Amino acid sequence: MHLNHNAEALDKIRHSLSHILAWAVRVHFKEQPIRLGIGPTTEEGFYYDFETEKPISNSDLKSLESLMRKLVAKNLPFERSSMTISHAIEYFTQQDALLKVELIEDLRERGETEVSIYTVGDFLDLCAGPHVENTKEIPIKGFSLDRVAGAYWRGNEKNQMLSRVYGLAFPSHEALEAYRKQREDAEKYDHRKIGKEQDLFVISKEVGKGLPLLTAKGATIRRVLERYIVDEELERGYQHVNTPVLGRKSLYVTSGHWEHYKDSIYPPLDIDGEEFILRPMTCPHHFMLFDSKPHSYRDLPIRYAEVSPMYRRERSGELSGLVRVMGFHLFDAHLFVTPEQVEKEIKDVVVLIQDVIKRLGLADQVWYRLSLRDDTKEKYIDMPTRWQEAEAILRKVADELALNYVEGVGHAAFYGPKLDIQMRTIGGKEETLFTNQIDFASAERFDLKYMASDNTTARPIIIHRSSAGCIERTIAFLLEHYRGALPTWLAPVQVALLPVNDRNNAYAEEIHQLLRKHKLRIEVDSRKESLNQKIRQARLQRIPYLVVIGDKEQEGRTVTVRNRDSGIQQSMPCETFVERLTAENENGTLMLEIARSE
Amino acid sequence: MHLNHNAEALDKIRHSLSHILAWAVRVHFKEQPIRLGIGPTTEEGFYYDFETEKPISNSDLKSLESLMRKLVAKNLPFERSSMTISHAIEYFTQQDALLKVELIEDLRERGETEVSIYTVGDFLDLCAGPHVENTKEIPIKGFSLDRVAGAYWRGNEKNQMLSRVYGLAFPSHEALEAYRKQREDAEKYDHRKIGKEQDLFVISKEVGKGLPLLTAKGATIRRVLERYIVDEELERGYQHVNTPVLGRKSLYVTSGHWEHYKDSIYPPLDIDGEEFILRPMTCPHHFMLFDSKPHSYRDLPIRYAEVSPMYRRERSGELSGLVRVMGFHLFDAHLFVTPEQVEKEIKDVVVLIQDVIKRLGLADQVWYRLSLRDDTKEKYIDMPTRWQEAEAILRKVADELALNYVEGVGHAAFYGPKLDIQMRTIGGKEETLFTNQIDFASAERFDLKYMASDNTTARPIIIHRSSAGCIERTIAFLLEHYRGALPTWLAPVQVALLPVNDRNNAYAEEIHQLLRKHKLRIEVDSRKESLNQKIRQARLQRIPYLVVIGDKEQEGRTVTVRNRDSGIQQSMPCETFVERLTAENENGTLMLEIARSE
Repeated sequence: MHLNHNAEALDKIRHSLSHILAWAVRVHFKEQPIRLGIGPTTEEGFYYDFETEKPISNSDLKSLESLMRKLVAKNLPFERSSMTISHAIEYFTQQDALLKVELIEDLRERGETEVSIYTVGDFLDLCAGPHVENTKEIPIKGFSLDRVAGAYWRGNEKNQMLSRVYGLAFPSHEALEAYRKQREDAEKYDHRKIGKEQDLFVISKEVGKGLPLLTAKGATIRRVLERYIVDEELERGYQHVNTPVLGRKSLYVTSGHWEHYKDSIYPPLDIDGEEFILRPMTCPHHFMLFDSKPHSYRDLPIRYAEVSPMYRRERSGELSGLVRVMGFHLFDAHLFVTPEQVEKEIKDVVVLIQDVIKRLGLADQVWYRLSLRDDTKEKYIDMPTRWQEAEAILRKVADELALNYVEGVGHAAFYGPKLDIQMRTIGGKEETLFTNQIDFASAERFDLKYMASDNTTARPIIIHRSSAGCIERTIAFLLEHYRGALPTWLAPVQVALLPVNDRNNAYAEEIHQLLRKHKLRIEVDSRKESLNQKIRQARLQRIPYLVVIGDKEQEGRTVTVRNRDSGIQQSMPCETFVERLTAENENGTLMLEIARSE
Repeated sequence: MHLNHNAEALDKIRHSLSHILAWAVRVHFKEQPIRLGIGPTTEEGFYYDFETEKPISNSDLKSLESLMRKLVAKNLPFERSSMTISHAIEYFTQQDALLKVELIEDLRERGETEVSIYTVGDFLDLCAGPHVENTKEIPIKGFSLDRVAGAYWRGNEKNQMLSRVYGLAFPSHEALEAYRKQREDAEKYDHRKIGKEQDLFVISKEVGKGLPLLTAKGATIRRVLERYIVDEELERGYQHVNTPVLGRKSLYVTSGHWEHYKDSIYPPLDIDGEEFILRPMTCPHHFMLFDSKPHSYRDLPIRYAEVSPMYRRERSGELSGLVRVMGFHLFDAHLFVTPEQVEKEIKDVVVLIQDVIKRLGLADQVWYRLSLRDDTKEKYIDMPTRWQEAEAILRKVADELALNYVEGVGHAAFYGPKLDIQMRTIGGKEETLFTNQIDFASAERFDLKYMASDNTTARPIIIHRSSAGCIERTIAFLLEHYRGALPTWLAPVQVALLPVNDRNNAYAEEIHQLLRKHKLRIEVDSRKESLNQKIRQARLQRIPYLVVIGDKEQEGRTVTVRNRDSGIQQSMPCETFVERLTAENENGTLMLEIARSE
């Protein structure tokens, strides 16, 4: 893996801290025999595994951390030396460091004759390195110990249980704090937690762990998103089609998925002697639709879109929430184009995506990745000229649209380069939200053709693209990104009507009907609860507008509207409210600004 | 089977005609040895199988038919007699009637000792009867020979091929002609044929025969229908949810479907040691959603609706079109109600259905069937009081709403009585379009409960219902019923814009954009074809409005609109057209009336 300079430096710091941790554990528990396991770096710091008589507990971490800080403050050098394998075995056996001995014996079996050793102060450890040259390079407030967990030696549950101490390490105290805040947010705003709090979806063991059930509210988010995308795509000349989630296995043998993608496909279903699979991709279905009649160049581009159900294999143990699921729905499309049309079509696709991203309020959150081949020849279809052409087109479009893009070598699809839309999850992890691919191979495999303008038979180039990713995953991402407070147009409930008193219920109902007529989504809370209690609950549900309806409002035929986000509260005639809310609901992105001047 | 008097009489006529046919074949082919097979009745007449040296051909039918008429006109009695089995074998062997001998031997094996023989004129046949007493009971112009087909003796392809001659027979010439017209229509307007002509769906052998692909036009019909139903249901207090097409097999063991319905379920899918099935029903998924949180009587009724994907096993050989499919989407719902709420909820369901039926323009086409238990105890859940209660409620609602209903003994679900919506296909066959069921058993099986007003735990009663059947089947039915000419609001293309000349293209495009703004579905035919050719093609596509745009229209900023159904043609300002069409599109049922006075 290629790391840049800063990443390399950070890795040395983390690696060195794991040694300091082991040293500190030795010092702290000096009365006990401690056997050291391994001490690698992680994405946020490091850990070290220890075999102890009594497990290390979280209450030990504070003393260990302060001891580490003292050791680091000594400005000690890390010194590398080496030992022959046999000497190392002798030495570590003598020290009763039997776990290390096991590791060295493995190295010997792999043909190594020498091992490297790093020493800091009077702590010596078997280690490949690299490390900082001196502990003064370690930012003293940039690290902390995080937690202890049990871990089997070498991950094998037949082995003894060790204490694994995790540490966090960053280049500065600020970076450490920022990471902690991010992690806290990731836990607090995990879509699974929001899903439960707002009653958006349910995981039922009886139905199956990777098969979430969307409640009325969750299904509302899906429906609003789906209708928006479908209408937007129809508007832009896509043909929305419907194809089934099942298909004959042979389709996927032809497509190459059975060969390149088999691990992601659920086992075939034998129906009357024929094998069907739950599709992992829509492509072959759309290809068969294209192939169902002859085409001339005049018919192209043909753009088939679908909100497409599909199933991709996940490990049962990893199924959870809306993201790790067995089945999902992709905002999918396949464009069949002539070589002359590729560039314009890719551009239009990117413009559509930009508009969708904007509507979702994510314009500042995403970036693009031009995903290219790496040198592993067998991973990709062997058509070098076509790869170059496709790459050049993607690059040109990205430049012309001034996209904020990076290059991702090794991230291409097996059949062509991609332009991916990247984002960072609330936990800070980079993920591909959705993707565009130029495919110059499938038409050949499926014998798809059209009559070119010179009356010869030609193969269409196929663009695979998604305008808004998978419904389930996009909803999860939006919930986390917005900390549960979805934009008004997507919110399952847009307005909470809160009558102050029973005698205001009739007026509240009147407003309810008025809003419903405009297809707005309302909840009336006419329970016998205090207004404060009602407000508290509506805020917990992250409902965009809380509308208080008391005697004053009833008399004046007004409403008092409180904005979930700004907290601003203001009275206005109910017609004004309906008008503004309707505008916001239709326009999508702009939150109703409750003018202060009124 | 219980047949009414007329049906019994018709059956005797048909049965007797099969003997007359066999006699006529004997007479007509008197130079050839003919062996007779069997001659049963069918739903539209009768057939008889013959073993001949040279197959009987369709060109023989005319002579055979006229010969039959002559024989019938002789007013001959049918006379029944009997023979012992051994005598019969001897007799038919002597006659070289070896097929009959085979049949008699089978009878002997089954323990029969005697066979009955019917004689008409000098034609004698082994037959269980019954027959008319005299051929004068046969309406001389009510029958005809239909066609010849090959058929293996006893349906076994290892046996010899026989000539099967089919006849039609009805109580009168008019009834025969009506049947022929209906059959002609059924062929002409078969949804598979319309689907091809209008490019609505595609059956791909590669994807699988029972897995139709909806094209852009087919998917448009589905989308329009779906959005209409979903919005209508939301409006009426349904919660639209989304649940997956897969579920653990155990769900269906609990529900009783695995026991009562196994033949309709595709084989389970083994995923990491757990069995999942493609669901044949949505019920368990909705039950699990209900069960995911506690409920009080104050929360009921809860109405979960879904446009629900499901798979039901059909024999591979029978898969075809949009009706005989492996998977489909049901406009499904499950209502969880208290005993006090059942009646009102059933009533609301029926009112919704009536409104949907009206919107689809089928109000005069459907009738209701109260589907009750028969005496086969093991077919139904044993809770007699609950059956009676549920039946009484359905009867009461049907009476109060003055439904046009019949009773269908033996048509209940295994868990309760039903109110079915019945219709006749274009081929004249009665079918259940969709259904409502009262289910007092599933709550117990799934341990579903709510807290009643007296703080005790109670079981909800569950209403299973569909508001518009299966999308695929309903679309097929509508296509056939409307002979391909769907009402404007459902038509995939609502307007064909036909510029007369190239110089009218710009004005046509202007109108196109105007109509698109109103979400109307337009096709512009700007090919270099004659206007007549364009009109012809748009009419074949059954597009509701053909709009001619020539110089005159362009100058006056008008359009000339021709109605597909009435053929009436009229000019009007384009704004007027947009206004009327928009109204028609939104309101659904009422076709734009092009006023003659203008």
